[in-house]
Amino acid sequence: MKPSVAIYGYGNLGHGVETALAAAPDLEPVGIFTRRDPATLSSCTGVPVLPVSELRQWRERIDVLILCGGSATDLPRQSPSLAAAFNIVDSFDTHAAIPAHFDAVAQAASSAGHLALISAGWDPGILSLARLLFASVLPCGESATFWGRGVSQGHSDALRRIPGVLDAREYTVPLDSARTAARNGLLGDAAPTATHRRECYVVPAPDADHEEIVRRIREMPGYFAGYDTSVRFLTAEELARDHAALPHSGEVIRCGTTGTKRVHRHTLSVCLQLESNPEFTGGVLVAFARAVARMQQRGIHGCITPFDVPFADLSPLSGEELRKRYL
Amino acid sequence: MKPSVAIYGYGNLGHGVETALAAAPDLEPVGIFTRRDPATLSSCTGVPVLPVSELRQWRERIDVLILCGGSATDLPRQSPSLAAAFNIVDSFDTHAAIPAHFDAVAQAASSAGHLALISAGWDPGILSLARLLFASVLPCGESATFWGRGVSQGHSDALRRIPGVLDAREYTVPLDSARTAARNGLLGDAAPTATHRRECYVVPAPDADHEEIVRRIREMPGYFAGYDTSVRFLTAEELARDHAALPHSGEVIRCGTTGTKRVHRHTLSVCLQLESNPEFTGGVLVAFARAVARMQQRGIHGCITPFDVPFADLSPLSGEELRKRYL
Repeated sequence: MKPSVAIYGYGNLGHGVETALAAAPDLEPVGIFTRRDPATLSSCTGVPVLPVSELRQWRERIDVLILCGGSATDLPRQSPSLAAAFNIVDSFDTHAAIPAHFDAVAQAASSAGHLALISAGWDPGILSLARLLFASVLPCGESATFWGRGVSQGHSDALRRIPGVLDAREYTVPLDSARTAARNGLLGDAAPTATHRRECYVVPAPDADHEEIVRRIREMPGYFAGYDTSVRFLTAEELARDHAALPHSGEVIRCGTTGTKRVHRHTLSVCLQLESNPEFTGGVLVAFARAVARMQQRGIHGCITPFDVPFADLSPLSGEELRKRYL
Repeated sequence: MKPSVAIYGYGNLGHGVETALAAAPDLEPVGIFTRRDPATLSSCTGVPVLPVSELRQWRERIDVLILCGGSATDLPRQSPSLAAAFNIVDSFDTHAAIPAHFDAVAQAASSAGHLALISAGWDPGILSLARLLFASVLPCGESATFWGRGVSQGHSDALRRIPGVLDAREYTVPLDSARTAARNGLLGDAAPTATHRRECYVVPAPDADHEEIVRRIREMPGYFAGYDTSVRFLTAEELARDHAALPHSGEVIRCGTTGTKRVHRHTLSVCLQLESNPEFTGGVLVAFARAVARMQQRGIHGCITPFDVPFADLSPLSGEELRKRYL
């Protein structure tokens, strides 16, 4: 029988997971749970949309629950709470908070005998796997990660919280000079502020003080302070027309050396160019949900990350097929 | 106690593994076994060089044996035979013969209760992992693999087997037009003959018939037939001066789509640029030897491939360190 999978949260990411599930022949989507009124929503693929209040009744009928909330406020509460009742996958992406999130989810999942996988997205996720693999096979060297050009939803949200800002979009842009330095092993441990710039597109309120908005953006600690940050004001119509998409890109570059008498240099890189961040992240979540369904069947429980998953478990194909097609 | 690791075969690849082991603080290199007279050889790192005839005496003292023979004639015999006595890792790289090699090694390793991991190199190996991961997270799309610009040792060997050829070097070169097509999802299932060309540098015997050599190269099935193949004759001194290094490169590109109402395109790629193919492959073998040492401790035996290894097992760091540094 196919493992049954449900979606928790029906925003951009929930929609991305929904379409990814439709492309997974070996998984059975059974429901999409939302905090909004299901009567006001209909799913694209015919999977029933249900109120979160009914979720507990589905405990025995869901093999893996994919959490599609945000990392700022949703997942820190939802992941531990839901791991007590379900096998879960999330895409928690606040890098600095991962150890605490891991511990909270591990405690809930372990006591309940469930399996929870956190941080399955493109970064953390695919790029994390590249960082770990590259450092393991080429231990003497340095790695760098570049984000963009693409829309950072966290930074866009931060712009929208500034008084006088009606709407906004932020693009993170890596510096070409930094990428070239990384490819040649010359970047050292340069901070992101030295390797990226930030472009802000802001819809101001009619009476807003533009100079004050720019000042508050440029001084915002943890988001814009220290970065080369440009701010452009535009109308709501222009924002909707030119900045509706949610593209993103990411690249990990490792340059390292081997050899004793003669030193040889190697450059390894992985690059993702995504026209839709939430749809691609949906595909990653579904592949890791497949792995969680299989691994919990093998008796594994507690909290894991993409680092703990053999790639064979990400694919619907058999080991024999995988070796023939991909090895 | 550190897992003990030994090397079987002391050519280019054996030397690459030796230097990679010197960079692995958690593994203990205990010996390098060679078919040549050990008295004529000395290791770069002080690890003892021993005759293969003594290998069986070391059964209890080697946790993982890394096989460094060639895929054409050595590994098809050595891997099954040695998997009966040791946990092994090899870099078997004849793609079409992998299923048969897997079966032979699986039988030997399973009956003996050992763990054997095959095809741990850069392709098969790192690029295989990228092919599997990319297809799993972005199932609707097409992938292409490009090799080069770099020296193919198999093709160089094939050139040297032609009568009248004293020495030779072959470079595999991907076509830029094919890479561009792959990035845009427009390559389809083009054969390698349509996506690569081959450059041959040949040292002819003094009395050799150059035209006949060129004809035999261009018509050689499975190696050069069907490819755009150039042949340049040069002296042994020129070959030694200009073509002594063993660089290689490889790239996997996947272009795929997501979305229902509106289709979004994504391009994923991994690229390896290696100044020394055998030294980089040595690093890959050592990382997978670490994983074999750990996985056999967990009671896993039989034959596995890189697809069966969680990346956490490739690194000397703890799970907690990995999450903090790389996730």
